[in-house]
Amino acid sequence: MNTSPVDTLPRYSIDSLSGFSTRLLEHAGVDTDKAVTMTARMIDGDLLGHRTHGLAFLGTYLERLAGGHISGSGQIEVIHDEPGAAAWRAHRLPGAWAMEQATSLALERIRTQAVFTITIANCSHIGCLQSYLLPFTEQGLLVLLMATNPGVASVAAPGGTRGVITTNPIAMGIPTRGNPILIDQSTSVGSNALFESYAARGERLPGPWVLDADGEPTDDASVLNGTPAGTIQPLGQTDFGYKGFGFGLMCEALALALPGYGRRSQPNRFGQGVFLQVIDPKRFSGSDDFLDEVDYLVSAVHSDPGAPGKKTRLPGERALATRASQLQHGVSLHPEVLSRLEPWSERANVPLPRPLQED
Amino acid sequence: MNTSPVDTLPRYSIDSLSGFSTRLLEHAGVDTDKAVTMTARMIDGDLLGHRTHGLAFLGTYLERLAGGHISGSGQIEVIHDEPGAAAWRAHRLPGAWAMEQATSLALERIRTQAVFTITIANCSHIGCLQSYLLPFTEQGLLVLLMATNPGVASVAAPGGTRGVITTNPIAMGIPTRGNPILIDQSTSVGSNALFESYAARGERLPGPWVLDADGEPTDDASVLNGTPAGTIQPLGQTDFGYKGFGFGLMCEALALALPGYGRRSQPNRFGQGVFLQVIDPKRFSGSDDFLDEVDYLVSAVHSDPGAPGKKTRLPGERALATRASQLQHGVSLHPEVLSRLEPWSERANVPLPRPLQED
Repeated sequence: MNTSPVDTLPRYSIDSLSGFSTRLLEHAGVDTDKAVTMTARMIDGDLLGHRTHGLAFLGTYLERLAGGHISGSGQIEVIHDEPGAAAWRAHRLPGAWAMEQATSLALERIRTQAVFTITIANCSHIGCLQSYLLPFTEQGLLVLLMATNPGVASVAAPGGTRGVITTNPIAMGIPTRGNPILIDQSTSVGSNALFESYAARGERLPGPWVLDADGEPTDDASVLNGTPAGTIQPLGQTDFGYKGFGFGLMCEALALALPGYGRRSQPNRFGQGVFLQVIDPKRFSGSDDFLDEVDYLVSAVHSDPGAPGKKTRLPGERALATRASQLQHGVSLHPEVLSRLEPWSERANVPLPRPLQED
Repeated sequence: MNTSPVDTLPRYSIDSLSGFSTRLLEHAGVDTDKAVTMTARMIDGDLLGHRTHGLAFLGTYLERLAGGHISGSGQIEVIHDEPGAAAWRAHRLPGAWAMEQATSLALERIRTQAVFTITIANCSHIGCLQSYLLPFTEQGLLVLLMATNPGVASVAAPGGTRGVITTNPIAMGIPTRGNPILIDQSTSVGSNALFESYAARGERLPGPWVLDADGEPTDDASVLNGTPAGTIQPLGQTDFGYKGFGFGLMCEALALALPGYGRRSQPNRFGQGVFLQVIDPKRFSGSDDFLDEVDYLVSAVHSDPGAPGKKTRLPGERALATRASQLQHGVSLHPEVLSRLEPWSERANVPLPRPLQED
């Protein structure tokens, strides 16, 4: 999927992609407000350059809707609510929509207190974590976001051979006076999607990033599909994988156990748990002190001349540049993304979007 | 310092070590309550097996007190306080004591809300993060703790050659129905103290864990003392160091920028910033659901037969076993720890503790 250079790919207007995706989702039974939000977050994924978590997911979502694994309509169940915290059960409603509701509530509640925390149990896939950070950083707020999937067990404990957690991403948005720092990273060496793509192409990994079923490091991603299955190495691999696993456990505690929707009921892979926390620096040392510190750090990183042939970069810098360029020139999509959607397009009688004409 | 097997080391009663350390600190001008707390947390470090962060630090603290870098007396300045959050400036008061005050406040405030968050700016070294987690996990509470030192810059951004952050530890205590999970890990391949000890012994590292001043990986820890200095690799090293650095930035944002005490004023290495957050699962999905999930995860890890010759283990397991054994049989200390304190012992006229007699 990522083999063609972006510059040679066809580009599309956001409007044409939005209309197309929204109509396909509506045709699959999704309420309009939910379809609009799901679409917006997928396009955000593409805008930020996370192409595995952009419109490439639309086909999967349509399949899951058809299979009854995503609910296109319904309401969130509130299981706890107090000024500083809430816990929701989302009953497989669209993750992007549940996140939009949570974001609205968080932005409202944070006006009157320093920290607001919300957990969501059993929403559908929320997609690209990074795409949820900007509404907070744009208001000068710190945001911490974790999400995980209790139906996938692809990462073993150090020394182990059986997957007990998944690749458990952790994201944080840190406001600065310039571009925000947008961290979004799995706690393993890579996401499940990355290894699936290597296995599908039959390509060797660049390094011994997975373990076979006996716990031996290998560069063969197909071991993940074996019986018994191999596992993905936690961040830190052989020497320091216990730390990557430690960060994975933090995500597991906050995004699965705290919402109360985890692995013990052996759920399928279609639901997720989410932990979202917003922090207002004004109510700690104050915004000026906070921003002075963060800006100092940003400038320290940028003034590093870099190792020969290298350049230092903060998390989110490349994503924000990709987004700015695509907002101006249109969203580039690999032809496979839309061609995979052709059957859905025909069934719903919604024509495929047409690429922008080159100037 | 860690060359002798623990079993052959002399053991001491906690009372004798406590009395000795407290009296030396008092002699150095530390208020009794503060001396007692500093001592207790150092002994906790030894009990949990983190010997670089145990009584091995007492000599350093005494030197810093003599140099005026730790204040033995004084009050914390409250710069913000609301039910769910507080921000303190500690004016170089003992880190362990500031943490004890913060812990008391957190345990009180969490009774009436889901989350309590506190930042501490400019306390002295707090020592072993893991030693602060048990008071929370014993009450069924989740706890997140980060601490960092704005006067040390030993880790570069990916692609960079200049230290911009330090090894920034992140700790979390996760309650279960059995032993708690006690995560405490630096976001680099190891702590500053680890590399200092290799450099002091002139020993090569087990792997290319540091970068020389040109950003080239090497196993020679002495590059950290060069001019210009090399840097410690973030967790994930060459391929995935951007993730370790990302976790380091999270610590930097929460434990330095949020308390408002960071690098921009180019402070010396004697102060720290702290972020402490307590979360009550009862006010999310409820304690039973939370514990059911966590216990399921613990049992999944323990039922893994393990790779050949290996055994799976959860964070904190070894530390808690070491603690239990030392609570029963006495605290083992390398002879150097006490011999380094001899001059202080003589000056204060406080005799060195005597080892327990073997049965």
